[in-house]
Amino acid sequence: MWRNFAIVATASSVSFFLGNSYTEWKENFPLIYRVSKAATALVTPPQPFQQLEPVPRSKDLSSIEEPWAKPSRAKEIMRYGYPGFDNLRTYDDFVLSYDRRTRTAHWVMEHLSPDRMVYDPSVDRSKCEFRADESIHPYFRSLNEDYKRSGYDRGHLSPAGNHRTTQRAMDQTFFLSNMSPQVGKGFNRDKWNDLEKHARRYARRNPNVYICTGPLYLPHAEPDGLYVKYKVIGKSHVAVPTHFFKVVLIETEKDGFELEAFLLPNQEIPNEKPLSDFLVPLDSIERAAGFLIFHQFPKEKLKKINGKKTGGLLW
Amino acid sequence: MWRNFAIVATASSVSFFLGNSYTEWKENFPLIYRVSKAATALVTPPQPFQQLEPVPRSKDLSSIEEPWAKPSRAKEIMRYGYPGFDNLRTYDDFVLSYDRRTRTAHWVMEHLSPDRMVYDPSVDRSKCEFRADESIHPYFRSLNEDYKRSGYDRGHLSPAGNHRTTQRAMDQTFFLSNMSPQVGKGFNRDKWNDLEKHARRYARRNPNVYICTGPLYLPHAEPDGLYVKYKVIGKSHVAVPTHFFKVVLIETEKDGFELEAFLLPNQEIPNEKPLSDFLVPLDSIERAAGFLIFHQFPKEKLKKINGKKTGGLLW
Repeated sequence: MWRNFAIVATASSVSFFLGNSYTEWKENFPLIYRVSKAATALVTPPQPFQQLEPVPRSKDLSSIEEPWAKPSRAKEIMRYGYPGFDNLRTYDDFVLSYDRRTRTAHWVMEHLSPDRMVYDPSVDRSKCEFRADESIHPYFRSLNEDYKRSGYDRGHLSPAGNHRTTQRAMDQTFFLSNMSPQVGKGFNRDKWNDLEKHARRYARRNPNVYICTGPLYLPHAEPDGLYVKYKVIGKSHVAVPTHFFKVVLIETEKDGFELEAFLLPNQEIPNEKPLSDFLVPLDSIERAAGFLIFHQFPKEKLKKINGKKTGGLLW
Repeated sequence: MWRNFAIVATASSVSFFLGNSYTEWKENFPLIYRVSKAATALVTPPQPFQQLEPVPRSKDLSSIEEPWAKPSRAKEIMRYGYPGFDNLRTYDDFVLSYDRRTRTAHWVMEHLSPDRMVYDPSVDRSKCEFRADESIHPYFRSLNEDYKRSGYDRGHLSPAGNHRTTQRAMDQTFFLSNMSPQVGKGFNRDKWNDLEKHARRYARRNPNVYICTGPLYLPHAEPDGLYVKYKVIGKSHVAVPTHFFKVVLIETEKDGFELEAFLLPNQEIPNEKPLSDFLVPLDSIERAAGFLIFHQFPKEKLKKINGKKTGGLLW
């Protein structure tokens, strides 16, 4: 009986979410609503929307120069599932879910492939500028001044170096919604950067690489129990994550997959420590993060996890 | 130009979310998909779904005894806006958004009115049992054993006493998704309970009362900056909020509104401290919580905030 409650509750939450959207839509388009209301008594042909301007259409979308006319890559990038749907932002070459409470992302998702890794000297990082993401409500937006004199770097979650196909794609990685406060020396500029290069190496040698990156707030033990503790910086109270994760899903030539799940503390890490020291079970990241990562990929095709061959039965 | 980017990014995130849902739908209903695919070359009449069982329909839904056949109250409860759409759960008499990272709710929303406050002796709290919410993925679900010997009460966010219309409505408030670890003596059983009674008093005397309740994780100052610190309990690491908020929106007889925003620390509070000591500006709650509360209510009709008459210009 209690199972039924849960199922019904979930089902109604979906349908009434739709109901609510309809109300909002009604309020925003009173004209259209009135037309369809009048038509309920009698079946009439659809009414023309005379008040609306005609939308010019091109037969070949790729011939339009405006970049927003191109089909988005979101479906490719998100091929193996959305970890969540909270405050999504779809940019040209990565997809992000924003956490309004911590003023940084929940997760950032990327898709890399050899043809996207080709070096183009016209795409230049020095042309990019860190910018507040004005699509976020001012209460929840992080600002450049939050980072000033905080002692932390504005650390890219989706790295600039992964998005060199166009200047615009690289520019978009500089939105502050894609930043987290990271320790600079020994982390952002060193070990974390090594990890980003490590993932790009896979992307040059394999047909497809999918990367999910994000911050974590992990508990530590004190005498009377476990505590989560993290700093917040600036007037916007941007959270300083205790850790960062990066999960790399590699689609190999042989129609197989390899997965590597990294968890690094947000602190100075000695150069001599190898990246393999930071491999962890995927579910430990998922449990701490509060979402599932690549949950829709064909697990029966997984050949290696964290460098070890899978038994073929469990992964 | 950067504004455009943001607008385009948001627009595409919505459309590609839809695209993704379609892919999922396709996978779940391969038959329907194949039919519509075959029809693309030539316009054919719609195909009957022969594999699907006919759904029995009743002309008068209210005559059906199963409670899930009744229209949900979600639209009434959520009348003045959803604070967010993350993991929604719609129960008979309240709506909840679940935070999978902290294993407790983001917020819980209720609608009370005098007719819902009538005492029915057949609805009995002692028949209720605390239950894990099986609609939440096991990685992110809180359990009764997480609370055992933790020193914290399983504190209702949507109080049982607000949902006395049916036993089922009250039962649903005992899902652990509606619980947060609360200090028992001096808080859950005392001052927090006083606040719940305070809100019910408004509900008996006014046509409509809307209540939004939730946990907060507020920073405190240390010598080198601000820190958020909270305990996590049990194997599921259920977060112990540092504070709780309750925002009460009262629709009065005179077509006006009054609003009260309370913020209480999750600790023993002396009995003699009046509730009015805990009134705070609404935006201080919203900024900390990461969402807006009642943002769609008619602000020009707001007569009182936190007991003080509004100037009529700003609120």
